[in-house]
Amino acid sequence: MTKIAFIGLGNMGGPMAKNLVAAGHAVTGFDLVPENLSRAAEDGVTAAPSAAAAVADADVVITMLPAGQHVRAVYGGDQGIIGQAPAGALLIDCSTIDVESARAVHEAADAAGYLMLDAPVSGGVAGAAGGTLTFMVGGSEAAFEKGKAFFDIMGRTVVHAGGPGVGQAAKVCNNMILGITMIGISEAFTLGEKLGLSPQKLFDISSKASGSCWAMLNHVPVAGLVETAAANRDFKPGFATEMMHKDLKLSQAAAASVGAATPLGAQATALYTMHVNQGNGSLDYSSIIKMLDKN
Amino acid sequence: MTKIAFIGLGNMGGPMAKNLVAAGHAVTGFDLVPENLSRAAEDGVTAAPSAAAAVADADVVITMLPAGQHVRAVYGGDQGIIGQAPAGALLIDCSTIDVESARAVHEAADAAGYLMLDAPVSGGVAGAAGGTLTFMVGGSEAAFEKGKAFFDIMGRTVVHAGGPGVGQAAKVCNNMILGITMIGISEAFTLGEKLGLSPQKLFDISSKASGSCWAMLNHVPVAGLVETAAANRDFKPGFATEMMHKDLKLSQAAAASVGAATPLGAQATALYTMHVNQGNGSLDYSSIIKMLDKN
Amino acid sequence: MTKIAFIGLGNMGGPMAKNLVAAGHAVTGFDLVPENLSRAAEDGVTAAPSAAAAVADADVVITMLPAGQHVRAVYGGDQGIIGQAPAGALLIDCSTIDVESARAVHEAADAAGYLMLDAPVSGGVAGAAGGTLTFMVGGSEAAFEKGKAFFDIMGRTVVHAGGPGVGQAAKVCNNMILGITMIGISEAFTLGEKLGLSPQKLFDISSKASGSCWAMLNHVPVAGLVETAAANRDFKPGFATEMMHKDLKLSQAAAASVGAATPLGAQATALYTMHVNQGNGSLDYSSIIKMLDKN
Amino acid sequence: MTKIAFIGLGNMGGPMAKNLVAAGHAVTGFDLVPENLSRAAEDGVTAAPSAAAAVADADVVITMLPAGQHVRAVYGGDQGIIGQAPAGALLIDCSTIDVESARAVHEAADAAGYLMLDAPVSGGVAGAAGGTLTFMVGGSEAAFEKGKAFFDIMGRTVVHAGGPGVGQAAKVCNNMILGITMIGISEAFTLGEKLGLSPQKLFDISSKASGSCWAMLNHVPVAGLVETAAANRDFKPGFATEMMHKDLKLSQAAAASVGAATPLGAQATALYTMHVNQGNGSLDYSSIIKMLDKN
Repeated sequence: MTKIAFIGLGNMGGPMAKNLVAAGHAVTGFDLVPENLSRAAEDGVTAAPSAAAAVADADVVITMLPAGQHVRAVYGGDQGIIGQAPAGALLIDCSTIDVESARAVHEAADAAGYLMLDAPVSGGVAGAAGGTLTFMVGGSEAAFEKGKAFFDIMGRTVVHAGGPGVGQAAKVCNNMILGITMIGISEAFTLGEKLGLSPQKLFDISSKASGSCWAMLNHVPVAGLVETAAANRDFKPGFATEMMHKDLKLSQAAAASVGAATPLGAQATALYTMHVNQGNGSLDYSSIIKMLDKN
Repeated sequence: MTKIAFIGLGNMGGPMAKNLVAAGHAVTGFDLVPENLSRAAEDGVTAAPSAAAAVADADVVITMLPAGQHVRAVYGGDQGIIGQAPAGALLIDCSTIDVESARAVHEAADAAGYLMLDAPVSGGVAGAAGGTLTFMVGGSEAAFEKGKAFFDIMGRTVVHAGGPGVGQAAKVCNNMILGITMIGISEAFTLGEKLGLSPQKLFDISSKASGSCWAMLNHVPVAGLVETAAANRDFKPGFATEMMHKDLKLSQAAAASVGAATPLGAQATALYTMHVNQGNGSLDYSSIIKMLDKN
Repeated sequence: MTKIAFIGLGNMGGPMAKNLVAAGHAVTGFDLVPENLSRAAEDGVTAAPSAAAAVADADVVITMLPAGQHVRAVYGGDQGIIGQAPAGALLIDCSTIDVESARAVHEAADAAGYLMLDAPVSGGVAGAAGGTLTFMVGGSEAAFEKGKAFFDIMGRTVVHAGGPGVGQAAKVCNNMILGITMIGISEAFTLGEKLGLSPQKLFDISSKASGSCWAMLNHVPVAGLVETAAANRDFKPGFATEMMHKDLKLSQAAAASVGAATPLGAQATALYTMHVNQGNGSLDYSSIIKMLDKN
Repeated sequence: MTKIAFIGLGNMGGPMAKNLVAAGHAVTGFDLVPENLSRAAEDGVTAAPSAAAAVADADVVITMLPAGQHVRAVYGGDQGIIGQAPAGALLIDCSTIDVESARAVHEAADAAGYLMLDAPVSGGVAGAAGGTLTFMVGGSEAAFEKGKAFFDIMGRTVVHAGGPGVGQAAKVCNNMILGITMIGISEAFTLGEKLGLSPQKLFDISSKASGSCWAMLNHVPVAGLVETAAANRDFKPGFATEMMHKDLKLSQAAAASVGAATPLGAQATALYTMHVNQGNGSLDYSSIIKMLDKN
């Protein structure tokens, strides 16, 4: 049994903490939203009055927060995790945030003598609930070895991608490809249909040929082809447009920070921004096909 | 044994005709380039002095030409295949051309009472030589039934995509996705490396995750990851940049003709145009990664 | 007094022909749409039963048609202008069409011994009615000298841009810039407003600085800044989105034909296609700003 | 005579400080680079040993630094301007930085009771030396009134764009338009030339028509048309590619922060990134035309 502090008990963090409890660990939690905290308490998490209180006694601290500014705030400052957590605690940030913030927090943790990991996930709410998340982990070998057992409880696939911040890098690179391929196949199915090529035929041909991609095989944006596609359910997510938009914006911030050229990533980001601005943020990300044509 | 006329005996048409000869058919051929014609003669093709002469006695006419204008020219006009080929001959155009030209020739053939198929291929010179091409076929069911046996000799995969021109449609839709995904993964591997994520790690993660695509699994633009990748051989093709550029331009012509929006397809086309204009047309299409960074 | 045949008497051709009549010329006209022909007759044009009949006796033939296919059809074939017009007639095509078609018709006219000009216009219906069009003219010096007097009747600005097809080239290059700048300023005004920068302030600053452009000074897509802007009138055109879309598609066809890279032109085309497909084709082209945000 | 502290005495800050000295003000300066500081001393600036020392006695503090992180650092922290400068000092940041950093520093200054302005400039090194800069100023009316006299010494045009951060907003919006129009005209001149339209003819036509823009009239990327164009001098800047690249990246960071869609701005940024990565950062920004074609 390990004493775990879990900060951020929302849609993702809540079920992740629940799985840690179920595995026999003593989990103390905190969330700014009282409902989140009380729901977690029902799941066996000990509610703490503040992040500082939650981590005071922890062997492992896990955070799951919306954006880099929140992560910087909860780790830094007078009452921050860095300083409040016991010496020797392992710090794990599971938030999906910008690489720069991830690295800044890593540096501060390292300077204070903590081992730290950035470990963004994919798999969504269903993956969090089912304990089937994928973790892309950045940090030292020593930190990864110490953290691996906990990832195995919350997820199914765990990859040590590299040093500090490289977990975030892996996630944005992968999801940038996903955003681009989703738009690419949306264009192809739209074009094909206008040319008299039925979606079924294009799927039959391309899914076995050089146009094949994960997005087509699993999330094809046309109804009736693939059971797992949100297109079959009026684009009820699945993976929401606003989440893809967030990841694409992170990819562009990362690209700007290192001077990488991502012309299609940039265009995909702009298209998803337009899609969000036209009111489609809560639809599945495969609904981007609607930007291309009237329906 | 069928009497086949084969017009266009270049890098692709030459070996395709040779495979038909080897299967026991009587092949009469024509090409404007004397060397192509004499090489075909060595392979057992009977050389004809003109396209009109080649088709005069044919049961099946097959054409393999560079662009729509050549196809329009060889089928139309006073000495065109339409008119010169015997009534009842099956006409098969294996060229990769614009959908509009394909449909115009289909219409003319139909008006003159011929059955016709558009049947562009993928698989390249190696596929033509080995008889392992993929045929994407457009035309009537009756025409397809009559032509299928010949595709089976020249290729391994044959798909009846739909009506007239839809073979071309299927090819441009598939290859537009391929062009987009190749640039997408090039961006991701470039970005990843600048962020400290090794190509091997990104490949290990994304090839099993939502970023996976045929281009990554087979033609990843970084050396040392996948044996079939041209990146291992200084981008010696494989599938040349100028061929991808041609297919992308056809996708854009098709999109313009039917009013389809293809923002990433348009951007991919522009990037390949820039890559060609900077002198890289004969490199493998995966060399597009060089546009993104110095090396 | 010159005998002029005018083929295509729609929104543009009708008033152009009327101005030629008013200048004292004998104009015989033809249009496939009976209403266009009878309206022209009221304006003093002698109605002919066919294009061939209209041109039979003409010194000058002027055509104003929607697209390249129409121009190819009316100039070529058995009853085409080329062949039916008297030897020595000057042929002027004022249609905005693809450069390839323009050059094909030029070549055919030249081979038959006619002088010919491509002379697309800008200025819209108002310019046609008021005789204030701009003509961008391609063709030989001799043809231009012969045609200039007639352009001066129908328009205010006449430029001899270069040889055959170069009138069309000039128009697509200019309008591609216009399409790009319109989207560019739409992005800037949208971004500015979200950042707390009022449209008036951005206009005051940029219209006198390095961001200034004709589109901003005349057609700024925000109401209340410039009197001539369609934004003041709920985007009632002006210059319709579908006309800009047509011109942008012509720019891309021209670029593809000569291997020119136009990454922003390509993107602008895709965005206008999306805008048309979402039902905004009849709004002014400055309404593209609506693609970027909810309203 | 006012006591002015000037932090950041590089290519821009150096001559700006010199102009303030020449106008009779007492300028105390600091720069991390000793050469910059000694050069400023030769120009009449009193060298201080630190930023804190420079501002200790100042009525007005002016900063001119490379990026948001530097501005945050020099204003914040124990020895930061905020806290070290006397109560009542006016703080002016002339750096071109991200809107978020600008607003964060504004907030901190405001909380500490200082008046502050963000006042990025355009006009480059020549404008700094000649006192002809343009200032785009964000902040309160009271702060602007206090600062105006000093802008008038260093520049020729001063615009109060709006509240805190809106000076930065105005600069990125304007320069995003400039970057887009420069690429747009580069595409048009490249396309035109391939179509047989001479650059001179395109310039003559478009500079008086709807394609006209500041970039064309002043910085056209083809030699021999406009005297002020860097194209006449092998693209010796002028306004360097790396500076345009910086401004475009700031525009994209600003767009991401407020959810604005800037599809052409995003594409322009990617193209300039590619241009920088291929080694052209120190050429004039109009050299982007070289990305489109071989030369």
